[in-house]
Amino acid sequence: MNAEILAIGTELLLGDILNTNAQFISKQLASLGIGVYYQTVVGDNPDRILTAFKNAFERADLVITTGGLGPTDDDLTKEMAAKYFGREMVLDEGSVEHLKKYFAKNFDKMPQTNYKQAYIPKDSNTIYNCNGTAPGCMIEENGKILIMLPGPPNENVPMFENEVKPILKSKQELTFVSKSLHLCGIGESAAAEKIRDLMNNSSNPTIAPYAKTNEMLFRITASGKDEEEAYNMMQPAVDRIYDDLGDFIYGEDDITLSQAVMNLAAEKNFRIATAESCTGGLLASAFIDSPGASKVFFNGVVTYSNESKVKLLGVSEETLESVGAVSEEVARQMAEGVARISGAEIGLSTTGIAGPDGGTDEKPVGLVYIGISVSGNTIVKKLNLRGDREKIRSRAVTEIITALRLELKK
Amino acid sequence: MNAEILAIGTELLLGDILNTNAQFISKQLASLGIGVYYQTVVGDNPDRILTAFKNAFERADLVITTGGLGPTDDDLTKEMAAKYFGREMVLDEGSVEHLKKYFAKNFDKMPQTNYKQAYIPKDSNTIYNCNGTAPGCMIEENGKILIMLPGPPNENVPMFENEVKPILKSKQELTFVSKSLHLCGIGESAAAEKIRDLMNNSSNPTIAPYAKTNEMLFRITASGKDEEEAYNMMQPAVDRIYDDLGDFIYGEDDITLSQAVMNLAAEKNFRIATAESCTGGLLASAFIDSPGASKVFFNGVVTYSNESKVKLLGVSEETLESVGAVSEEVARQMAEGVARISGAEIGLSTTGIAGPDGGTDEKPVGLVYIGISVSGNTIVKKLNLRGDREKIRSRAVTEIITALRLELKK
Repeated sequence: MNAEILAIGTELLLGDILNTNAQFISKQLASLGIGVYYQTVVGDNPDRILTAFKNAFERADLVITTGGLGPTDDDLTKEMAAKYFGREMVLDEGSVEHLKKYFAKNFDKMPQTNYKQAYIPKDSNTIYNCNGTAPGCMIEENGKILIMLPGPPNENVPMFENEVKPILKSKQELTFVSKSLHLCGIGESAAAEKIRDLMNNSSNPTIAPYAKTNEMLFRITASGKDEEEAYNMMQPAVDRIYDDLGDFIYGEDDITLSQAVMNLAAEKNFRIATAESCTGGLLASAFIDSPGASKVFFNGVVTYSNESKVKLLGVSEETLESVGAVSEEVARQMAEGVARISGAEIGLSTTGIAGPDGGTDEKPVGLVYIGISVSGNTIVKKLNLRGDREKIRSRAVTEIITALRLELKK
Repeated sequence: MNAEILAIGTELLLGDILNTNAQFISKQLASLGIGVYYQTVVGDNPDRILTAFKNAFERADLVITTGGLGPTDDDLTKEMAAKYFGREMVLDEGSVEHLKKYFAKNFDKMPQTNYKQAYIPKDSNTIYNCNGTAPGCMIEENGKILIMLPGPPNENVPMFENEVKPILKSKQELTFVSKSLHLCGIGESAAAEKIRDLMNNSSNPTIAPYAKTNEMLFRITASGKDEEEAYNMMQPAVDRIYDDLGDFIYGEDDITLSQAVMNLAAEKNFRIATAESCTGGLLASAFIDSPGASKVFFNGVVTYSNESKVKLLGVSEETLESVGAVSEEVARQMAEGVARISGAEIGLSTTGIAGPDGGTDEKPVGLVYIGISVSGNTIVKKLNLRGDREKIRSRAVTEIITALRLELKK
């Protein structure tokens, strides 16, 4: 089976939004062993949508659309699909009920305009949407499959995962399994070099390296007649990567670096407190992103001004005057200070120049000190980070969590 | 002139990378008044690339490709373009010189394989690349234009801005200008309803509404024979939107909500301190995202545990015991507490249940209290937010900044 992904929406053609749906669905289809030959984006124009359907079904068995399922007149995906397949639009009572419940729960009475969303091409299957008002729908005819999903990722992602994926999986002869191994503290090329022979000589499983900001991952994907066979094909490659790169692997599959490090801290009954200057809340947020953070993350302070560093953390005014806020000594005092005021075993700190202004020859944009204090032992690392303000801040966060991981592994 | 953007690269079809180029180029073309009717992605396959060229030139005057200009055998964009236009590939001496210099500066001797990159279809124009080894190239024939750019954004963005944009601009008769008006505190449909007559009856300028998380914007785009004429066409619509929706408009063009609110605070010489529970640093981060935040943002604390709410902010233990951390009273004490310990005029607080766990019938996931204390006057708002953990947290942040804006506008 090969597929085409067709995004419908003028806002994409104007560059107002990024087509993250195409990436998400492509990745999902790849994991199911379904090849994608084309991704297409077309605007909210009836003739062009119809042409896009014709072109797509000439070259693909499966077409997945995103967008154009809203209640307004320029939402035309289902209408053009009905035209393409020569079907009339019919009111789907199930969708009406679902929409009414959705409105009752989240807003009030359902507006008349939203009835449009409950119409689907005759003899198609509704895909319910728990996070929005646009139901999706699926049409099968003569070996061709059309799946229409709404545009907003928070709606179509769960619909794809919960409804569409199982259907597509059942249509595939081979079962695919995959595992992601997450590494930090090593670059993509250095990691790939270590297992180059494995990557080059293995076709089932395939092993693909991916670079992420200050992290990387290997995705190992294997196929077999059932899950067991696929897992058996995969396991030797996983073992080999652990043998060669185990120290850098912080976790598998959906785990994040901050979650992995919080798990390490939890094993030791350690709690984490953060004191941030240039990262301004991002470090605390990285921990709190994970459900269950309350067991490990104790508290954080964002001390952006010098005054607040003194007031809240007890950083010495003399130190601030003599070496400045962006310094090894202030990073140390911040990490130790936040551990002290919170009573947490781990104190983390960041102080640096995220730019775009504020850099000097001596302290350029990108200079960041990170402090890691664990049970009273404090280390400070000096980083010279590149990129814009956002990148420098997010890299500093990854660096400090990586450094904490190494301390906790000691 | 209408355009199609054609991205070439199997890695896009596998979902390994996001097609940010399509968004960037679409936005650039929109600003030049060049309509984009299709974006297409195709893999590194000669037949499919050739077909993609044929399809694209059937429906567009201008085709801009990204990717497929590398030195390896699966980089085929220029070769297929030559085939499509019936031209031979010739060695471009200028590119050889440019490549040699690039290698000498950045690496060492130019490898033999990179000579491939200096070949271009006969009678085409080279677009030099200062940030990589892949030269771009442009072909004009019978009113059709093909522009081929490399895939990496750090290479194609400067090439587009410095080389391609001036060429395209010179080919356009009309000049386009546009303005974005950002609104908060009103939904997309309610805002659009207020100016529906204007939106429906105006073709120059065009007025398009866009929904963003808890915000929305109108983009007004006008054309004229020069900038002045275009601005004159645009202004009455802008004035009308201000007349009808001025209270909700927080700024124009590139400003963010947090920046706009910091500007309001700065006018009054107010400083902001934040105390966050469920938003865990995101609120502080929203302020610190903006350069120059240090003038207004004083400090923030992330008090995720009850203990830290008591210790750092002086929240009453009795209150925590009697009504719990997620309560109007605790939000109030947090906002006032953080203002007090910091000496800031504005104290903001969040406390809520971001999920996925921790909800009860009485206090469900999505219940968030936000506290806004301005010069000692404190209001607390109760929110019932929907969505996943990430969404609830980011919505709470937008809600509290919106609420602060209203307080500062009073």
